[in-house]
Amino acid sequence: MTNSHSNTPAIETLRWTGANNADSPAGFLDGTLRLIDQTLLPTRFEERVCPRVEDVWEAIKTLRVRGAPAIGISAAYGVCVGLQTLFRAGEAPSEPIFFARLAEVTDYLASSRPTAVNLFWALDRMKAAADRHRGEDPLALAERLLSEARAIHEEDRLLCRAMGRFGAELVADGASLLTHCNAGGLATADYGTALAVFFAAHDSGKKIHVYADETRPLLQGARLTAWELSRRGIPVTVQCDSAAAMLMRQGKIDAVFVGADRIAANGDTANKIGTYSAAVSARYHRVPFYVVAPSSTFDLTLPTGEGIPIEQRDPDEIRRGFGPQTVPDGAAIYNPAFDVTPHELITGIVTEHGVISPVDEEHVRRVISPERTCRGN
Amino acid sequence: MTNSHSNTPAIETLRWTGANNADSPAGFLDGTLRLIDQTLLPTRFEERVCPRVEDVWEAIKTLRVRGAPAIGISAAYGVCVGLQTLFRAGEAPSEPIFFARLAEVTDYLASSRPTAVNLFWALDRMKAAADRHRGEDPLALAERLLSEARAIHEEDRLLCRAMGRFGAELVADGASLLTHCNAGGLATADYGTALAVFFAAHDSGKKIHVYADETRPLLQGARLTAWELSRRGIPVTVQCDSAAAMLMRQGKIDAVFVGADRIAANGDTANKIGTYSAAVSARYHRVPFYVVAPSSTFDLTLPTGEGIPIEQRDPDEIRRGFGPQTVPDGAAIYNPAFDVTPHELITGIVTEHGVISPVDEEHVRRVISPERTCRGN
Repeated sequence: MTNSHSNTPAIETLRWTGANNADSPAGFLDGTLRLIDQTLLPTRFEERVCPRVEDVWEAIKTLRVRGAPAIGISAAYGVCVGLQTLFRAGEAPSEPIFFARLAEVTDYLASSRPTAVNLFWALDRMKAAADRHRGEDPLALAERLLSEARAIHEEDRLLCRAMGRFGAELVADGASLLTHCNAGGLATADYGTALAVFFAAHDSGKKIHVYADETRPLLQGARLTAWELSRRGIPVTVQCDSAAAMLMRQGKIDAVFVGADRIAANGDTANKIGTYSAAVSARYHRVPFYVVAPSSTFDLTLPTGEGIPIEQRDPDEIRRGFGPQTVPDGAAIYNPAFDVTPHELITGIVTEHGVISPVDEEHVRRVISPERTCRGN
Repeated sequence: MTNSHSNTPAIETLRWTGANNADSPAGFLDGTLRLIDQTLLPTRFEERVCPRVEDVWEAIKTLRVRGAPAIGISAAYGVCVGLQTLFRAGEAPSEPIFFARLAEVTDYLASSRPTAVNLFWALDRMKAAADRHRGEDPLALAERLLSEARAIHEEDRLLCRAMGRFGAELVADGASLLTHCNAGGLATADYGTALAVFFAAHDSGKKIHVYADETRPLLQGARLTAWELSRRGIPVTVQCDSAAAMLMRQGKIDAVFVGADRIAANGDTANKIGTYSAAVSARYHRVPFYVVAPSSTFDLTLPTGEGIPIEQRDPDEIRRGFGPQTVPDGAAIYNPAFDVTPHELITGIVTEHGVISPVDEEHVRRVISPERTCRGN
């Protein structure tokens, strides 16, 4: 999990370490979950130790940890934290008690963010692992579950690295790149999606400069993306979202890379509000526009992006974004969580299996089939 | 100055009223300047009385009053406020003392915002009026200056109304319109520029709905435009700047109207950062894009917008826009005050003389010649 082969310093969104020594490796009994408290960024970098399952629940609930993959991995480790109580008395629990506690802990963690699909996926995977090893000694079972959490963690890391590798091939040395929101390592266990491309390009020795949209209303671009990039030594400039078009006009943007929340079968991509605006500007200025997302982001049951419902978020994110009220009471607020960029504006979609380009149903199915018969293009 | 012929309630950015009674008309001796304290908007509506020239200076300096026309008019009335001290003792001053005080007051007011061209223009006009009437009794001279200030004020009102009338012809009943920043009455003495179009359309009985970009970094759209529109009874919705493209895609925007800081001879238009982004989106979605500005905004010495220097503003507007730091120390900030929209993206420019369309050097010169031989098109 260290970056011994790269010149990019590691940022570990979360990790399983010795309870008393953050740098020692740990097993089930002597380990604990530590995660970066993202609510303190970008001005304070602090890891939060989660010795009780309630701490993990609270960290997910209050967005100390965020991003679908990172939430899933946190919950998986959270299951281990929750099971530790069974072994505190020094005596091993019976199998029925073990499974009762497992059910209690997974139900409890599932209630932390009831809309996070990855959370349920990770918890189901932990329960399935336990079921597979039913009959083993409870401590051995617990170690199996820690291994499963580590596997979920490692799979995510490999996904990020694969996307980064494919995406970095699209980046020229000396390139100046735009991104929107935070499709970075903080949302995953490692390099993230769009940011993985920048980290991989940087690791391979290319000099790049990144322009990060601040990304209203919640400013993930300013707070998180700029923090990750500058911490990893990549020069980054933050601008208001509405200034990106002007940067393109000035010839300052060679390509755009963004993440994705959900991708339809034809490549239409739902992502943070403002992504579509960046895609329209990119098209007007003939700047390549790439989406970076693992295959799990594709929803092949949706033929196009029109089927994706647009969630409206709390108007106070705009009305009182930073404390003081900035919109008068008499005005309505339109605060969609994301927008949909149609496939015809997307130059390519970078996945862990390769780059989909051109972006249409046929080329999506070549890379992302339900059976995954085809790998890469 | 009242809106007896319209259904739109008046908002008087500033007015000359009785010192003790805001609703009584007043002459030079018994009058004073009152202006809306725009720093308190949108949550508090308060008029600020300026009984001393120092109060006028402070109001301009601290942006209690803002917008080129409104600053000019405030300064003109400020001259009258400054001259009142000469008459406080009950005895009229001599002509040399009158002109000495006039010079003192105009120099002082000119120092409040040294980059505001309209400020100097208005002060020069006040001095020229005094020179024209040299030899008259000082109190008569002072009344002449109050008349001059009222004339500057009234001319601005008529300009706004003329632009509103021409622009309203471009607005269909039931239209849904987008604007960026605040090109409203608060920057002028009356209806403003882009917002004048909305007010005139509303006055003529058309039902309209306005979408206002919040306009990062300083949120003039959220704070001022939304306040003006809702106070005048026009339904308004505020969204993040980056959501405007999506609104256009959904067919929710029938036309865009924005103001202008400076317009080159070929129609290239400098305006608040984000205007260009809205213009690019409008073009992509085939939505008409109009600029609304008086002829004084044109700079015919500039052949194109490329000659307009782009001022960079304080990075803290982005780094600490609302108090807490939201961009890490390691990141650079790009914070241009405005951008330039090329004439080919502009459907028409609405002026007090009529609408320039198509927008190119030939059609600009037909309406905006230095001699103004041609009125309207």
